[in-house]
Amino acid sequence: MSHGKREGEVVAAIDPAHIPGDAHVVFIGHIRSPWRERSDCPKNLRQARERAPQGCRLEIGETWRPGLSGLEAGQWINMLYWMHEARRDILIQHPRHRDAPTGAFSLRSPVRPNPIALALVQITSLDLATGIVGIDATDALDGTPLLDIKPHLPTIDLPPA
Amino acid sequence: MSHGKREGEVVAAIDPAHIPGDAHVVFIGHIRSPWRERSDCPKNLRQARERAPQGCRLEIGETWRPGLSGLEAGQWINMLYWMHEARRDILIQHPRHRDAPTGAFSLRSPVRPNPIALALVQITSLDLATGIVGIDATDALDGTPLLDIKPHLPTIDLPPA
Repeated sequence: MSHGKREGEVVAAIDPAHIPGDAHVVFIGHIRSPWRERSDCPKNLRQARERAPQGCRLEIGETWRPGLSGLEAGQWINMLYWMHEARRDILIQHPRHRDAPTGAFSLRSPVRPNPIALALVQITSLDLATGIVGIDATDALDGTPLLDIKPHLPTIDLPPA
Repeated sequence: MSHGKREGEVVAAIDPAHIPGDAHVVFIGHIRSPWRERSDCPKNLRQARERAPQGCRLEIGETWRPGLSGLEAGQWINMLYWMHEARRDILIQHPRHRDAPTGAFSLRSPVRPNPIALALVQITSLDLATGIVGIDATDALDGTPLLDIKPHLPTIDLPPA
């Protein structure tokens, strides 16, 4: 990601991209979206929905497709994906929409030690044989690697009443 | 994790634990909880809250502590953590609370290709110098590695109205 250091930003003593790491992830598939360049991407999921993108989907690798059984069209899912173009070493950042620099863990910025994104989306179609899961929208770049799908459960995914 | 194969379960052709992986994660800290054995752990976050555990907290490694700035006590956060004891190769599972085997991606089971858990918790205290973040509850085993903290944003973390 072409993110130069801005005034007030703090870079980690260790760049997570350049150390062996503590555990590894596998890519279970990819996100397909109309956004081919970072400059095309909506800034967040709300803006993505406003642009009503067509053809957003997950393409799940053959090995992992049995794991889709039990999901249904209409269901809301939390998807976790790997923001492969993001820097991982900027701990205090100054996003354009903020008045002052702030910590990576208080932002939803892609720039963080583990560039894992969380997005709540709705399944619009599901084909277990081809591993294609239609979703209502995404702000992710076309081709972004997918890590996980989890059902949205209001009993644990919302603050208790 | 001591999870034997049960009737109707499907094991992946590839065990993600035994391949090099596509990317690596770093552990930014650990979760501390009263649960010292898997058999002690509440089944989910709702049950964890019912048991009113004391002393649940995140201990963030020194390198990553600047990333906490901007967080506040009282705030709800999504935390992502690594379920290091879970098997990664069982794609169709038969949890005890289900009538039939079902796909890993339709369950919140720790057993999944990338054993990353998602939990929405409330910050109860915050000390940037020591990297200790108190949280209201967790169902995670004491010592579970932490991957990320993200602010909960109702505009994107709830299904649109």
